[in-house]
Amino acid sequence: MNGRPLPPSRDLRLVHVDARERQSVVSLRGASGPSFGGKELAICAGPCAVESYEQIVATAAAVAGAGANVLRGGAYKPRTSPYSFQGLGRDGLAMMREAADLYGLAVVTEVLDPRDAAIVAESADMLQIGARNMQNTALLRAVGETGKPVLLKRGLAATVDEWLLAAEYIALTGNEQIVLCERGIRSFDPSTRNLLDLSVVPLLARRTHLPAIVDPSHGTGIAALVAPMGLAAVAAGAAGIMVEVHPDPASAVSDGMQSLTFAEFESFMESMPAVAAAVGRSLPKRFAGATLNAPPPS
Amino acid sequence: MNGRPLPPSRDLRLVHVDARERQSVVSLRGASGPSFGGKELAICAGPCAVESYEQIVATAAAVAGAGANVLRGGAYKPRTSPYSFQGLGRDGLAMMREAADLYGLAVVTEVLDPRDAAIVAESADMLQIGARNMQNTALLRAVGETGKPVLLKRGLAATVDEWLLAAEYIALTGNEQIVLCERGIRSFDPSTRNLLDLSVVPLLARRTHLPAIVDPSHGTGIAALVAPMGLAAVAAGAAGIMVEVHPDPASAVSDGMQSLTFAEFESFMESMPAVAAAVGRSLPKRFAGATLNAPPPS
Amino acid sequence: MNGRPLPPSRDLRLVHVDARERQSVVSLRGASGPSFGGKELAICAGPCAVESYEQIVATAAAVAGAGANVLRGGAYKPRTSPYSFQGLGRDGLAMMREAADLYGLAVVTEVLDPRDAAIVAESADMLQIGARNMQNTALLRAVGETGKPVLLKRGLAATVDEWLLAAEYIALTGNEQIVLCERGIRSFDPSTRNLLDLSVVPLLARRTHLPAIVDPSHGTGIAALVAPMGLAAVAAGAAGIMVEVHPDPASAVSDGMQSLTFAEFESFMESMPAVAAAVGRSLPKRFAGATLNAPPPS
Amino acid sequence: MNGRPLPPSRDLRLVHVDARERQSVVSLRGASGPSFGGKELAICAGPCAVESYEQIVATAAAVAGAGANVLRGGAYKPRTSPYSFQGLGRDGLAMMREAADLYGLAVVTEVLDPRDAAIVAESADMLQIGARNMQNTALLRAVGETGKPVLLKRGLAATVDEWLLAAEYIALTGNEQIVLCERGIRSFDPSTRNLLDLSVVPLLARRTHLPAIVDPSHGTGIAALVAPMGLAAVAAGAAGIMVEVHPDPASAVSDGMQSLTFAEFESFMESMPAVAAAVGRSLPKRFAGATLNAPPPS
Repeated sequence: MNGRPLPPSRDLRLVHVDARERQSVVSLRGASGPSFGGKELAICAGPCAVESYEQIVATAAAVAGAGANVLRGGAYKPRTSPYSFQGLGRDGLAMMREAADLYGLAVVTEVLDPRDAAIVAESADMLQIGARNMQNTALLRAVGETGKPVLLKRGLAATVDEWLLAAEYIALTGNEQIVLCERGIRSFDPSTRNLLDLSVVPLLARRTHLPAIVDPSHGTGIAALVAPMGLAAVAAGAAGIMVEVHPDPASAVSDGMQSLTFAEFESFMESMPAVAAAVGRSLPKRFAGATLNAPPPS
Repeated sequence: MNGRPLPPSRDLRLVHVDARERQSVVSLRGASGPSFGGKELAICAGPCAVESYEQIVATAAAVAGAGANVLRGGAYKPRTSPYSFQGLGRDGLAMMREAADLYGLAVVTEVLDPRDAAIVAESADMLQIGARNMQNTALLRAVGETGKPVLLKRGLAATVDEWLLAAEYIALTGNEQIVLCERGIRSFDPSTRNLLDLSVVPLLARRTHLPAIVDPSHGTGIAALVAPMGLAAVAAGAAGIMVEVHPDPASAVSDGMQSLTFAEFESFMESMPAVAAAVGRSLPKRFAGATLNAPPPS
Repeated sequence: MNGRPLPPSRDLRLVHVDARERQSVVSLRGASGPSFGGKELAICAGPCAVESYEQIVATAAAVAGAGANVLRGGAYKPRTSPYSFQGLGRDGLAMMREAADLYGLAVVTEVLDPRDAAIVAESADMLQIGARNMQNTALLRAVGETGKPVLLKRGLAATVDEWLLAAEYIALTGNEQIVLCERGIRSFDPSTRNLLDLSVVPLLARRTHLPAIVDPSHGTGIAALVAPMGLAAVAAGAAGIMVEVHPDPASAVSDGMQSLTFAEFESFMESMPAVAAAVGRSLPKRFAGATLNAPPPS
Repeated sequence: MNGRPLPPSRDLRLVHVDARERQSVVSLRGASGPSFGGKELAICAGPCAVESYEQIVATAAAVAGAGANVLRGGAYKPRTSPYSFQGLGRDGLAMMREAADLYGLAVVTEVLDPRDAAIVAESADMLQIGARNMQNTALLRAVGETGKPVLLKRGLAATVDEWLLAAEYIALTGNEQIVLCERGIRSFDPSTRNLLDLSVVPLLARRTHLPAIVDPSHGTGIAALVAPMGLAAVAAGAAGIMVEVHPDPASAVSDGMQSLTFAEFESFMESMPAVAAAVGRSLPKRFAGATLNAPPPS
């Protein structure tokens, strides 16, 4: 009776699948850098929050070694409670940049305030709009106007159409380098932190030319579910994944329960190529200019 | 099994019910102005968006005549689609202020961008944080810092605890003049636009000293349901209501389907005193300094 | 965008509001018995489960004394766990009937198995279909075929249309003595056990001629919220309420957290007449043939 | 804050992962028949409803030829509307049995009424409890008591714990041949018919020894999403899939929009082996005794 999906909004103009001849590919740091939407997957990994120089460098080394090509990490953290750690701000941005450069990674990090967009764009390769801000139109515009690639996470209770209309806000600034990220939505079942909605992966491919990745860490909230759901995401056609990795999840200042250890991430990455190949994709090749053999920071 | 409510977050410090000796009363325009949380209800009414001077003045006249004491209306509109009307901005603010002054009403209006908080605070009596921005921490802080009373709408998928923690962000700026507004949450049933969660009214009274009102217009999305749900809200203990009223709902640029005509609003207000009296409340007395007999604007 | 309610299903034939000239009134035990949908409210109260003769008689006495006219209680209990108390079965039915007769109450109780419908119909005045069985079509038909009035609770995730189509299954047996009962639906917020959807009360009045009542006990799961939400239900236009009352909620075998004590129920009933009067309704008059002065059972 | 999963219910006794030394394997038609939980996947395919002898035989031939080993199809249909096709009943059971035998398939079909359990058990190899009846305890017991393997679909708004407790009802009859089937739950987004919750696949593997399969047809409601989500289910660790296939979906009496054509199903099956192999599984070998070369029925 109400099973028939609604027709997509007519206001999906720039981001609609019919607006371009083919699916878009969004690249970071030039054509030889990490890309979203091509044959190679984008593997974004790193801690929930940048906590210290040592933490972010060690994590960058580990995830680069295991096959990631984008370093994720929060310098400005959107926390439910004002008493929770709010991030290291500009210091965190600098640490992340340095860690990424040491190991040939690109950087994606969240922006919370339109007044911070320009500063974050100076050091990061991709600006993230978090789930809580998916319909923060002032922020969508400010981030779009930096001209940097944007990672737009789905809101906690956003329909696919609302999500794509948020992307349309960004696209209207003239910046169509937008990647969508499914990260779980609200549900009645407390078994998992959020409910990872993988069906949006093939659904989005029919509605928009924008590439989509999946974050199984926020999507489940449980470290043991990250690898199977990451594989499932790739099997469903995702252009990449975003995973939380921490040197010591038990002591993480946030999201420890859903973070993988270095060993767990490495094991996960080892299981990925076969699934990727089964759907015509592959892990990213080593990023041009990577300096994996750089001496560890003192 | 999972029916037992969770204990409230320990991070509810300033807004927790135990943080004050009694329930708070938030007043606009001084002690003789509209208040939220006292014996008198706050009746906020007006159009979804300020569309023109004629529209807002006519609406102000009608709602004041029927018993409202606060004029609502959007000058900056948070729209799902970037192609929808985004509001008249500063011009809209000025029109609203003038219309409210003509008829002795206070003004509540939404802020979307932290960079606009100061300018809105110059003309409005109460700043609204909309549902989509409930966890926009930059905006919560900017609005709190204006020192003006704040109306904090519940997010579309926010738990009560998350909502109160958003209020705590505002309170931490030193501004505890916060009123909560239930406006419906996301549900699986397309019968109504949102699912109005009236149970939060008595639940909030046990968790926080902040007053709470209810918006049955957004909460149901159907004009015919606004009056019965407004009465139900008051019976449940709400400190007031917020209702969309438009001179001609069928031609409204937004939310026409849920807006009341002047006659419908007047009829609704006539049914209110008996229910209010049954739970120990009353409609607001005429606002000091009101000029209801002012000549209609030419 | 998706805020417009869907048109009601064309398959709502017998129960559609246009299928009868006026709203239906469903009466128990003849025209002088409790009725649902008239000027008088139906007040259904009693324990979650019949636990013993003493418990049900004491509760019947208390709720009748406070103004209830229908005794509720479960003899066959639908429990999430097979290890939870499953009810006293036929013995429970007999105890309930006797307790109700002593104090002039009608009896409503749940049926779980189509093979039990006839036996329950012998002793009860109204057969309840619980939320978990709202789409148990075999049970809907079996209960309808007894010819007894039916109380149809809304499923935990049922849309209004699905609920009305379940009623249509019953009506097709030739039995249109159906009362709908909103008892809360599933939500993401663990603050309450279920999410009480009071908006369905005025919505149903526009879609069906069947009367609707509200169960704020299951609807909230928290005893302190029962009275305010019961008053709100009546203000919204409900034809009655169903409330859990227990001699000693702390020792109840089920649902103790949401059950009212006798004193709490009495206090709640004292607050009801003013709200009922405000919307043109009244508490039930004493049931014809009631024997409230019967000696307490030894 | 509320992201931590609740501990599983202590009432999960027989079905808890710790109750057996290893994950269970449920076999149909003896050890050489289709099995759920072993290295080989179970591939259940067929129409929503048995509509005619020709339809079910043609479908059986097609799905067996493409690699399925279990024929699904409804003879007793749980329909939202009483005016929708309710199934062919016993005639449908006989047609299904014959079609399955012709092509070496096992049969799974739904039971709606406890009074029908024995009769269905005479002809089917596996009895299905549908989503609407997941907490129909009378049916759970009746189906369990037949001693036949049971396919227990997840309720539309059931938590994982509630689902497992429903399985516990069956297990308490002495029948632990239970397979769980995720088929999508209720969500606020109308983009898909239901929200397929694939995360339960790895989650269930940590909580119960029972095998779990996934139904991407009901889980999405959109034929184009079935194959990618079926592959994702296998990548996540599902023990099998259940898919709707129809000779002419556009003319199906039910669920046509989500049914695959024979060619679509064959193409889907061709993409499966690589993904299955990537996670250590394989498609079922030809069922012992299969008679794929049987002459088509006249």
